[in-house]
Amino acid sequence: MEKKKIAVIGAKGFAARELITILLHHPDVDLLSLYDKLDKNEALVSNFPELRGLTDIAIQPIDPSNMNIDADVVFLALPHKVSQEYAPSCYNAGKIVIDLSADFRFENIDLYEKTYAISHQAKDLNRKSVYGLPELYRDKIKTSRMIGSAGCYPTSVILPCAPLMSTDWIDFNSIIADSKSGVSGAGRNPSPITHYVSCNESIRAYSIAGHRHTPEIEEKLSLRAGKNIRIQFTPHLTPMDRGILSTIYVNLTSEKEEVDIRKLYEEFYRAEPFVRILPENQFPATKHVSFTNFCDIGIKLDKRTNRLILVSAIDNLVKGASGQAVQCMNIILGVNETNGL
Amino acid sequence: MEKKKIAVIGAKGFAARELITILLHHPDVDLLSLYDKLDKNEALVSNFPELRGLTDIAIQPIDPSNMNIDADVVFLALPHKVSQEYAPSCYNAGKIVIDLSADFRFENIDLYEKTYAISHQAKDLNRKSVYGLPELYRDKIKTSRMIGSAGCYPTSVILPCAPLMSTDWIDFNSIIADSKSGVSGAGRNPSPITHYVSCNESIRAYSIAGHRHTPEIEEKLSLRAGKNIRIQFTPHLTPMDRGILSTIYVNLTSEKEEVDIRKLYEEFYRAEPFVRILPENQFPATKHVSFTNFCDIGIKLDKRTNRLILVSAIDNLVKGASGQAVQCMNIILGVNETNGL
Amino acid sequence: MEKKKIAVIGAKGFAARELITILLHHPDVDLLSLYDKLDKNEALVSNFPELRGLTDIAIQPIDPSNMNIDADVVFLALPHKVSQEYAPSCYNAGKIVIDLSADFRFENIDLYEKTYAISHQAKDLNRKSVYGLPELYRDKIKTSRMIGSAGCYPTSVILPCAPLMSTDWIDFNSIIADSKSGVSGAGRNPSPITHYVSCNESIRAYSIAGHRHTPEIEEKLSLRAGKNIRIQFTPHLTPMDRGILSTIYVNLTSEKEEVDIRKLYEEFYRAEPFVRILPENQFPATKHVSFTNFCDIGIKLDKRTNRLILVSAIDNLVKGASGQAVQCMNIILGVNETNGL
Amino acid sequence: MEKKKIAVIGAKGFAARELITILLHHPDVDLLSLYDKLDKNEALVSNFPELRGLTDIAIQPIDPSNMNIDADVVFLALPHKVSQEYAPSCYNAGKIVIDLSADFRFENIDLYEKTYAISHQAKDLNRKSVYGLPELYRDKIKTSRMIGSAGCYPTSVILPCAPLMSTDWIDFNSIIADSKSGVSGAGRNPSPITHYVSCNESIRAYSIAGHRHTPEIEEKLSLRAGKNIRIQFTPHLTPMDRGILSTIYVNLTSEKEEVDIRKLYEEFYRAEPFVRILPENQFPATKHVSFTNFCDIGIKLDKRTNRLILVSAIDNLVKGASGQAVQCMNIILGVNETNGL
Repeated sequence: MEKKKIAVIGAKGFAARELITILLHHPDVDLLSLYDKLDKNEALVSNFPELRGLTDIAIQPIDPSNMNIDADVVFLALPHKVSQEYAPSCYNAGKIVIDLSADFRFENIDLYEKTYAISHQAKDLNRKSVYGLPELYRDKIKTSRMIGSAGCYPTSVILPCAPLMSTDWIDFNSIIADSKSGVSGAGRNPSPITHYVSCNESIRAYSIAGHRHTPEIEEKLSLRAGKNIRIQFTPHLTPMDRGILSTIYVNLTSEKEEVDIRKLYEEFYRAEPFVRILPENQFPATKHVSFTNFCDIGIKLDKRTNRLILVSAIDNLVKGASGQAVQCMNIILGVNETNGL
Repeated sequence: MEKKKIAVIGAKGFAARELITILLHHPDVDLLSLYDKLDKNEALVSNFPELRGLTDIAIQPIDPSNMNIDADVVFLALPHKVSQEYAPSCYNAGKIVIDLSADFRFENIDLYEKTYAISHQAKDLNRKSVYGLPELYRDKIKTSRMIGSAGCYPTSVILPCAPLMSTDWIDFNSIIADSKSGVSGAGRNPSPITHYVSCNESIRAYSIAGHRHTPEIEEKLSLRAGKNIRIQFTPHLTPMDRGILSTIYVNLTSEKEEVDIRKLYEEFYRAEPFVRILPENQFPATKHVSFTNFCDIGIKLDKRTNRLILVSAIDNLVKGASGQAVQCMNIILGVNETNGL
Repeated sequence: MEKKKIAVIGAKGFAARELITILLHHPDVDLLSLYDKLDKNEALVSNFPELRGLTDIAIQPIDPSNMNIDADVVFLALPHKVSQEYAPSCYNAGKIVIDLSADFRFENIDLYEKTYAISHQAKDLNRKSVYGLPELYRDKIKTSRMIGSAGCYPTSVILPCAPLMSTDWIDFNSIIADSKSGVSGAGRNPSPITHYVSCNESIRAYSIAGHRHTPEIEEKLSLRAGKNIRIQFTPHLTPMDRGILSTIYVNLTSEKEEVDIRKLYEEFYRAEPFVRILPENQFPATKHVSFTNFCDIGIKLDKRTNRLILVSAIDNLVKGASGQAVQCMNIILGVNETNGL
Repeated sequence: MEKKKIAVIGAKGFAARELITILLHHPDVDLLSLYDKLDKNEALVSNFPELRGLTDIAIQPIDPSNMNIDADVVFLALPHKVSQEYAPSCYNAGKIVIDLSADFRFENIDLYEKTYAISHQAKDLNRKSVYGLPELYRDKIKTSRMIGSAGCYPTSVILPCAPLMSTDWIDFNSIIADSKSGVSGAGRNPSPITHYVSCNESIRAYSIAGHRHTPEIEEKLSLRAGKNIRIQFTPHLTPMDRGILSTIYVNLTSEKEEVDIRKLYEEFYRAEPFVRILPENQFPATKHVSFTNFCDIGIKLDKRTNRLILVSAIDNLVKGASGQAVQCMNIILGVNETNGL
């Protein structure tokens, strides 16, 4: 197969760096062009000195009104609201579009507009978009050209909850997800919150009862369960670069054995290359998935409280962003799903 | 007042170092002697170079069969099971005994024995012991000479839950405490778990559904509520030296306003020098209580799920161990409760 | 003695927070007022949540043209260039002025102006100023009301080098100081450089051959040696909150024994409460001086290369800034030099 | 080319993990077997949970008296002294042997024996061994079957110094290397020194004037210079997982221009795939080489002191150990030198 031509729009954030690094080592593609809102060309290495010697690509200026991109696949590593300005013209030019922002993740566009407090500028395209979480949407991804790649926290919560959605084992409104993220999740813009001295030697919760990823998680779990689900989701800022650990509590509605629950999970994810169900009494650590596309899941049934505790770990920049986006691309291109990952 | 003479048994762990540091700066006491299981005297500074120049005390050998301690107050900074070997003779010699281990924390001695899988060697003394959590046991501490200073995780969970125990607002079996601790909580013994490269850049859960602090928390909350309470408690190892953040989820049984819950808390802790109830939409960070005896508590009512989310932060080595022990001592000695803290 | 009234101008940086914390616990002073460039009063705790409950002082607006400060001592915790706008009117009103910036540290004002690329606006006052490094300038500090508190890197380099300056043991132009600082040294303003993800898991040199602290160090060492000294100084940004470790290399001009060099140091600093000369083959760690006003110094003579290696450690926010400033105040006020420290 | 069969002896340390990970992704080899001193087979994933799903290889018991290894290439990731017990029988069986310990790095076996305070058990084989630093020994590596892969600190010091060795620009006895290493450099065995709470928030020097890598560096530089060179080398333990930054000071013997020095370096390393000479006024950060086989070198001439300051950065586990060993293997096998790296 001829190598596919790749462009990335939005080349300056942490997810972009991760994406560029993955694409540079990917056997099936040629990363040809990088774009961002700029006045003139910028050297990629002045932005990411770690990439010196790996590529000579420059970052080129772009704006939505003047796009002429030579690419088979376009990744959008832009903030929400901005992605929707660029996606339609890429899509209409016949390209495969994989968006890493939240703009094309929702089936319910009203929920998106309420959550992000803006009106969506590309509702038609959104209707064509497929949620970029391969473990649950692989068949649809395969035949789509517009992907809204799943969010980092949602990936870490949906994957461990999904197998339960088609059972009658749980109280569907009892799900509590307590998630701990590394600081790269807060983005690359300097702020008092991301200052080293603010983050180091400290952990704190934020956006309690109001984080934007809650509706994304609820929509996807509700669709699978066939009923409206409300979850409790609390993110925490943890003193580390990367990784999300989600500790998830679910009330069972009847008595179960852990071995049966484990069986459900092992069968559900048997064929998945990137989901690892850990053995009994083993639980994930974010470090064990760092710089990988894995989602590790640990399972514990507390018979004393009749509660199921699930613990998942992902690398927020890989399985929670760029790795997942490339996994979606691999599926669409029909190459080995693990290539480059 | 003449300064009280202080001895510390168990002088080599993290809590001991913190305790020694606090006592050296305390206006009402003279730290006179340090003991540990040794063959011969050991320089304190060879164990804790940071204390050079602050004191000349050496660590002396001691064993339970040969104790002759000149002190008004004896702190035991020993592992559980070991403390109970030393406490009785100190107590019987008329001293005030403040134990930092779990040995004298339980009213239900059977629960202790089951939890720690040993038979207790000082049951009589345990009956005289008072739980060393001043905010809830101040009056009893005042007239006691035997204190089982409250555990680190229990302090971080009991304080934010206590005000609810005398209400009928909550489902008492819905409490979930998701706690994140710094590595000093794992003790000073080197192990694969506490190796820098294991902990750094990683967060993980441990002892899910089986941590020894669960029964301690449940006993104290049950006693306050007047009914048996089962909680779900999950500790996590977080890449930082010190601090515990507990995120606590409680289901309400009827609709409430956050302002009323906040009022309950502010009144409950109004006179407490070391509990800070944070204003609306402000939540604790462990760094904000580092090296202090504060317990910060943030409150959020999620009306969408009718769940109360409480977040507490303490320094595990101060309010979770040595600071709390000194606070208990201050109460017993009748000096200002905040002295030295 | 009646407590002295203290004001702090510049209340929002890391050094200010450290200074406020020290002053709040100081037995001889009342911290009465805080000022900064503001439009209206700001709550101190909104800026430093860790100080909740410790004080009710607000930060008040101030500008150099409208100063009416009720204080015996004024600390200036302002950037260089700004301090010199505020110092003269405080000084002329009879107050003791202790400046933490570089503005009043140089005897050679031309060197200051060249180094900081500005013209000094308070040259008269600068002539009255004493360098705030008590170990070397105690007598002059005692009788001064204008102190230019020594810089963080300079403190960590000057103290270990000073004893050698009055010997003929060394090649005075061979001094190389390789210094490693925690991120708080870079200030509280968010920037790409201080972003958590930039600093964490990385160490790097900066301002090689051009750091502004080089002339400050050289002036003070040259004055002691009675000849012009050129040093090589390289600062590094280290993934930790606080602390400076300086590893200093000096060529000896003849053969010496380490025991004699050690003797020189022990005698030089014998009476100093905050300098600890470590025993043979022991070397400092920044953690051993964290949150203290100590400067630890380790000494090693490499007979193979005939080079002396000195290693010093300070807490850049305490002995390198606020603790040192308070030590200077204690000297001027005639109270115990270690009070509050 | 048929894939080469690979065995690794010593499968439990940090370098082994890095090596296994690299080999599992290497296109030209099959990692077939892992060995360590064990009583019976051990699961690799119980030792390295991060490798779950990547391989099914178990770790097998082995001892030097009973070796029967089916492999074309054997990597020894063993401590010094132990490697020399295994190397001869592997070599004599015709395999390519790449040793990551210090056992086969010295040409001067007396220097080895003095430095490591043992007598060498495989002196014959040592005479055949080539120092595994491809940038300087590529031709010899190409035709050798016994490699003593270069040490981590030595790599970080030798590469930036090497170009100067064939000039007459410098004072050859003025070289001072101040090196800062992440904690993985201290090995995986738990100890008080590698405890998280010892390392975190602290930096310290160790083995001043006596580190075992000093003679290794001196031998290699002396051989290149054609004269005996003594360097000053000071390692530091830095609070990060991986990475070494070496700041190197060299006195020039005459006046030079930085541009000419830079030219020397750029030409010297022009063809090297893993050495990056940074542009003027840019200096390395360890993070920019993390998880890569790069050695970044920054250059600064301080005309004021006539001293050259070189700063190098490597990942101690990759270019400082496993990556370098694989690079050597690639050279011997005749495959692309960057394969798998």
